[in-house]
Amino acid sequence: MTDAEERNSEGISSYGRRKKVVRKETRLGLSHGKDEDFGKWYSEVLVNSEMIGYYDISGCYIIRHWAVVIWDIMKEFFDKEIEEMEVEKCMFPLFVTSAVLQKEKTHVAGFEPEVAWVTKAGKSDLDVDLAIRPTSETVIYPYFSKWIRNHHDLPMKVNQWCNVVRWEFSNPMPFIRSREFYWQEGHTAFATKEEADAEVSEILELYRQIYEEFLAVPVIKGKKSELEKFAGALYTCSIEAFIPNTGRGIQGATSHCLGQNFSAKEFFDITFQNEKRRRTVFGRIPGPTIGVMVMVHGDDKGLVLPPKVASQQVIVIPVPYRDANTQEIFDACAATVKTLRKAGIRANVDKRDYHTPGWKYSYWEMKGVPLRIEIGPKDLTNNQVRAVRRDNGAKMDLSMVSLVEQVKELLDKIQESLFDSAKQRRDACIQVARTWDEFVEALGQKKLILAPWCDEEEVEKDVKERTKGDTGAAKTLCTPFDQPEMHEGTKCFASGKLAKKWSYWGRSY
Amino acid sequence: MTDAEERNSEGISSYGRRKKVVRKETRLGLSHGKDEDFGKWYSEVLVNSEMIGYYDISGCYIIRHWAVVIWDIMKEFFDKEIEEMEVEKCMFPLFVTSAVLQKEKTHVAGFEPEVAWVTKAGKSDLDVDLAIRPTSETVIYPYFSKWIRNHHDLPMKVNQWCNVVRWEFSNPMPFIRSREFYWQEGHTAFATKEEADAEVSEILELYRQIYEEFLAVPVIKGKKSELEKFAGALYTCSIEAFIPNTGRGIQGATSHCLGQNFSAKEFFDITFQNEKRRRTVFGRIPGPTIGVMVMVHGDDKGLVLPPKVASQQVIVIPVPYRDANTQEIFDACAATVKTLRKAGIRANVDKRDYHTPGWKYSYWEMKGVPLRIEIGPKDLTNNQVRAVRRDNGAKMDLSMVSLVEQVKELLDKIQESLFDSAKQRRDACIQVARTWDEFVEALGQKKLILAPWCDEEEVEKDVKERTKGDTGAAKTLCTPFDQPEMHEGTKCFASGKLAKKWSYWGRSY
Repeated sequence: MTDAEERNSEGISSYGRRKKVVRKETRLGLSHGKDEDFGKWYSEVLVNSEMIGYYDISGCYIIRHWAVVIWDIMKEFFDKEIEEMEVEKCMFPLFVTSAVLQKEKTHVAGFEPEVAWVTKAGKSDLDVDLAIRPTSETVIYPYFSKWIRNHHDLPMKVNQWCNVVRWEFSNPMPFIRSREFYWQEGHTAFATKEEADAEVSEILELYRQIYEEFLAVPVIKGKKSELEKFAGALYTCSIEAFIPNTGRGIQGATSHCLGQNFSAKEFFDITFQNEKRRRTVFGRIPGPTIGVMVMVHGDDKGLVLPPKVASQQVIVIPVPYRDANTQEIFDACAATVKTLRKAGIRANVDKRDYHTPGWKYSYWEMKGVPLRIEIGPKDLTNNQVRAVRRDNGAKMDLSMVSLVEQVKELLDKIQESLFDSAKQRRDACIQVARTWDEFVEALGQKKLILAPWCDEEEVEKDVKERTKGDTGAAKTLCTPFDQPEMHEGTKCFASGKLAKKWSYWGRSY
Repeated sequence: MTDAEERNSEGISSYGRRKKVVRKETRLGLSHGKDEDFGKWYSEVLVNSEMIGYYDISGCYIIRHWAVVIWDIMKEFFDKEIEEMEVEKCMFPLFVTSAVLQKEKTHVAGFEPEVAWVTKAGKSDLDVDLAIRPTSETVIYPYFSKWIRNHHDLPMKVNQWCNVVRWEFSNPMPFIRSREFYWQEGHTAFATKEEADAEVSEILELYRQIYEEFLAVPVIKGKKSELEKFAGALYTCSIEAFIPNTGRGIQGATSHCLGQNFSAKEFFDITFQNEKRRRTVFGRIPGPTIGVMVMVHGDDKGLVLPPKVASQQVIVIPVPYRDANTQEIFDACAATVKTLRKAGIRANVDKRDYHTPGWKYSYWEMKGVPLRIEIGPKDLTNNQVRAVRRDNGAKMDLSMVSLVEQVKELLDKIQESLFDSAKQRRDACIQVARTWDEFVEALGQKKLILAPWCDEEEVEKDVKERTKGDTGAAKTLCTPFDQPEMHEGTKCFASGKLAKKWSYWGRSY
């Protein structure tokens, strides 16, 4: 959906048939239900909650304040953690020469069709075409060889947050599949494989924390199949999320062990004698993160934000009545915000006098603020406020006396119950399939399929071939670290050969 | 200097003639003095202190940890300040279509020869060539018109930290003139000119604080001439720094009032009736910041970092003697770091056992750490440490009893005295010129020239024309807000007409 399409959809949103009256008044309602038309619902939520602005170049989006803040909160957490791991910050250039990009053949093959090329500056042609980084392995590793002069310089660990570009031609989708996107990429080098392996899991655990503890999205930790691993990696680990509405898995973040693929050969040989002992690892948390959170928690009223990442955790709304002292109510709201802020709670008041309280309720529901506090004349009299949870609509009166404690407790509860409820819905989608028929049936029902597998690449290719269709082929999502028991003699669901492991299968983004 | 050149210069640095013995042992010494060859000194300091890595594309640089941390400290300060001003965060796309870029003719003319163009993706030509943003006015303002639906939506304030690209063909220089660079750009819209004017100064004051209070670099606040203002602005304010060694001014940061140039016309007319009252302002702090700091404070031993932006404020170095208890000394160092860190001081210990204390002194001097603490057996006995200031080499013993207080005080003193000393050197360069002859003489002496001026564009053009040469033409740097008294009848130094204002003139980066 480009700019123009968005304007049309806004038109529909304001003047469409469903809940016409409300939307005409508020211009806030969604014209598409989450279960009705998931794709349109998703776009509408992102635009109406002011997370995303559509742009006049397809696949490029404006990330607005409401989303940037979430990104920054994750960044702050991650940066603090990796600082303790002595990871250094860096900012590598946006451009790569074609020669450097070509150095790692198997690696680059995966990106080549999507690389954006700068060929002109002003009116002059450049001597050499420059690629915009689709990822930074070939940009960074040559410099590792310069900077690592002997074993004292190991381990070397660098990390950057940056924009990368992949000119995908399939259907773009904000956060999920965009041509320019933002991510974090960490690149490290160690003397031993043991250290490298440890780093892979340590970083993967941080990614799990971001998804489960910040975004309240349950994920599965596991290893990618040979077919699905990162081009050029020894092995790839990932965390996998699942979107029940579409029955699709989505790779949440990856952590790779590159072995000596990028290091030992042309780069490191130059300066480093003790070869055969360098291992490189890196991890990345990609753009989709926020999109997954929106898809998992959002509802027909709009966005639902987990308190830990919400730019505003509490919105205070004055509810004046005709015969009441309005000023007193506005003052009480301001004082409440001050009290909450002092306690480190991200609170604000909606003091706009040209909107009704009802309009404001809808507005902040659309924006997904976890907790709404209403203050009217009766609340003043009773020295209390009315609190309304965004996630389940529950209403309760909170005494002003212990407001901070109660609000903190409520926010914790909301965070927890968002995760629990998401996990319940995700778990309800998991279906064990032991035979091909069970597999096909479960796939038709949009399940997250757990199946015994012989772990052969040819078999995965065959499954992809046999399931391909309009909605995309099924593939392995991951082999979970947490393996169910495998009874002796269990057969692969697809090949009938002896199964070696349980793996998750499904369609994916 | 590209990659290959850098490797050569490193070779010279290690085996060159000056101070040959020391450098052979330490590989740390600089082969160029600051007063000897400023340009080479600057490059060497950036590389040897590990702030910058040269890259294989000319004009693109690797910003390393030691510099990224400084950038992040400034960012954190600025973000906190503008959050209180209710500025929203945003991330606009990297790409602009040619059509959008062309919308503001006078504006784009200034950038056109330097725009980098993406024309291909994979092997396919794009339908429309895409510019990489050289700045974001034309990217952002069309969306202001969508988001500002009526006066309730004003003021609108957004800010982004991002990379921009200008494919300059003149001599590149890390931080000062690079093809890809990082900056902050804020864009705002107000209902009245008064509010816009206030925003211009408020932001300019934040920039002054960054330079003077964080980087300890003195700057002059003022207004740019009509010739030097931002293409498309009503007026441009700036802070100007000065590099005594080269006698060149450098624009530290700018804050512009765009009037209605970008807003009232094609963009805003669409949705906004009450025209003639929109004013747009924005400010930006550009890449050169860190380079200016390096140039102003650095010396022949390397970098000198102001404590407020130093990634490490204190480095603790164990100084074991042959017959002393080495473990005890290392333990005391670790304990000292712990104490300092607890007090919020960024301290670390250099516990590498394969380098001598002397090597470590040179290493951390090169990296510019403000305060070195040495702990040897005698210090242990006396319950003290030895402290050495990076800025002036002063040595003193500090009792362990009140270590934190003394270190804090010392760091404050270093910060202050770096600024004072830089200001003294800058002020010593200021030369009043009342006639053309005085002006030419001062220019030859690399002065920062304060001259009475008639404020006519033709006269500035004429001065540029008459002074152009190998080292570049002289131009106005700014008209300082802080105006010296102008006696009646004072004549313009260049035209002989009646002078209207005092302006700073000089060569610049």
